[in-house]
Amino acid sequence: MIANYMISAGGKRLRPVFTILSTKLFGYQGQDHIKIAAAVELIHTATLLHDDIIDESKTRRGQITANEKWGNKYAVLVGDFLFSQSFKLMVATSSIEILDILSSSSSIIAEGEIKQLNNVGNIGITEEEYIDVVVAKTAELFAAACKSGAVIARQDSIVQNKMYLFGKYLGIAFQIIDDILDYTSTGTGKDIGNDFKEKKVTLPIIFAYKNALEADRQYIKKIFRSNSFEQLDSFSTLVNLLRQYDCFNQSKQVAIRFVEQARACLDSVPKNQKFTDIFNEILDYQVNRVS
Amino acid sequence: MIANYMISAGGKRLRPVFTILSTKLFGYQGQDHIKIAAAVELIHTATLLHDDIIDESKTRRGQITANEKWGNKYAVLVGDFLFSQSFKLMVATSSIEILDILSSSSSIIAEGEIKQLNNVGNIGITEEEYIDVVVAKTAELFAAACKSGAVIARQDSIVQNKMYLFGKYLGIAFQIIDDILDYTSTGTGKDIGNDFKEKKVTLPIIFAYKNALEADRQYIKKIFRSNSFEQLDSFSTLVNLLRQYDCFNQSKQVAIRFVEQARACLDSVPKNQKFTDIFNEILDYQVNRVS
Repeated sequence: MIANYMISAGGKRLRPVFTILSTKLFGYQGQDHIKIAAAVELIHTATLLHDDIIDESKTRRGQITANEKWGNKYAVLVGDFLFSQSFKLMVATSSIEILDILSSSSSIIAEGEIKQLNNVGNIGITEEEYIDVVVAKTAELFAAACKSGAVIARQDSIVQNKMYLFGKYLGIAFQIIDDILDYTSTGTGKDIGNDFKEKKVTLPIIFAYKNALEADRQYIKKIFRSNSFEQLDSFSTLVNLLRQYDCFNQSKQVAIRFVEQARACLDSVPKNQKFTDIFNEILDYQVNRVS
Repeated sequence: MIANYMISAGGKRLRPVFTILSTKLFGYQGQDHIKIAAAVELIHTATLLHDDIIDESKTRRGQITANEKWGNKYAVLVGDFLFSQSFKLMVATSSIEILDILSSSSSIIAEGEIKQLNNVGNIGITEEEYIDVVVAKTAELFAAACKSGAVIARQDSIVQNKMYLFGKYLGIAFQIIDDILDYTSTGTGKDIGNDFKEKKVTLPIIFAYKNALEADRQYIKKIFRSNSFEQLDSFSTLVNLLRQYDCFNQSKQVAIRFVEQARACLDSVPKNQKFTDIFNEILDYQVNRVS
């Protein structure tokens, strides 16, 4: 079953970990953090499933093979099922506040994914537009996870909002680093070149298109506007260009700025030596994922 | 935008009407019924959008046209967005009970759709298996709509459950009639032959496969197991077979039995002449949709 497959397929489980750490940071002793952490991860898993839907021309009709009957539809429906289960877990906490936070997040994530789709192949997007999409599609759920922890640990609204911002800044940094790794990763378990294939214009590309010499800009534009993926060589050419114009390092510097903003939020909420330290280590780890 | 298109594309709006009528039946005077009715309709609209996802073979990769980039993904994401908005509306009522009912329904609907997908082309399914799918994919939301009305009108759990069953039986009858109309409709605004194209084995087909002579059974089996839709003639041949074996009338009799069960539920809850009458008229109307 797809649901089991998705759940057992691994992943870093960052979002539920952040939910739980955020409750522990404030000394929460109850049991609802597990339900909320699971709900957060189910929203994320449903999003991943729906993100994998393959599109096709609407004109191809009349001829349906059995194989075609069994791909996208299952991914959509299992995603919907997981999404519903997520809300059932939230209902089990009886907390309208948590339901409010996470239903808003779900809505923002869907909007972010739509924005991202609108930007496919749009080489002209700005750093700000890129960050807007990242905030919605990625950082919002990190933010909601961290705020939810503060909410069920009954912290006041100032602390709740600081934790929201902590998660948000951390989430932005996380996504920027992921977008760098999509071009540079040499480790195992991490795919490379997905954004390139899907024509997602990410931060390294934005820097390259902004700073490169005209001939190189035209080359980059051509790659991202093209409808063909026959240029297998173009990926390594592009990576070389991105290195040449120091785009990975520039992107990393942006991520570092967000990590520091996250650290400032963490510094402004009540400390708990053990869990404050863990969060600080996670912040350090983020920027060290790229050399 | 797809959301506006879907919302303005018409439809009978039965589910929100049932939600509102159920509150009025019990003299509800508040404002939350509008939010819940809208939430119910958004769940339904999201389901319709997701139901329209077209599948494709997983092997077709490497070549992605712009046209292909803009079909399914938008339908999925806009569906997710509407689904999230639905939960935000429920949160706005501050009723954990309503959230409980409708998050369970969403989960059951997704399960029902998955079951239906599993049954595609399965000519051997029984009437009971068919009803099981109908209960999940269609009747559950009618049931939840009617129960929600009783819940916010503060009726006791016996009345709530009777309204749940009222909606459930009405929903089953509604779907059976719809499945008959998918072969027989001559009116405007109603597509015909969709279940046939999608190889959904519905009640008229189940009766035909059960009762027909062996040669006709083999013909029906061949149609529903085939992967090709070149047989444009086979639809009218099939409709003739279904008439010959009285399958539409047999199916209608099943719908009538569910309508009578719904009426019994309605009879067992407190009456309100105006709204009880409206519900009874809706019940009469259901079975009169087919001749």
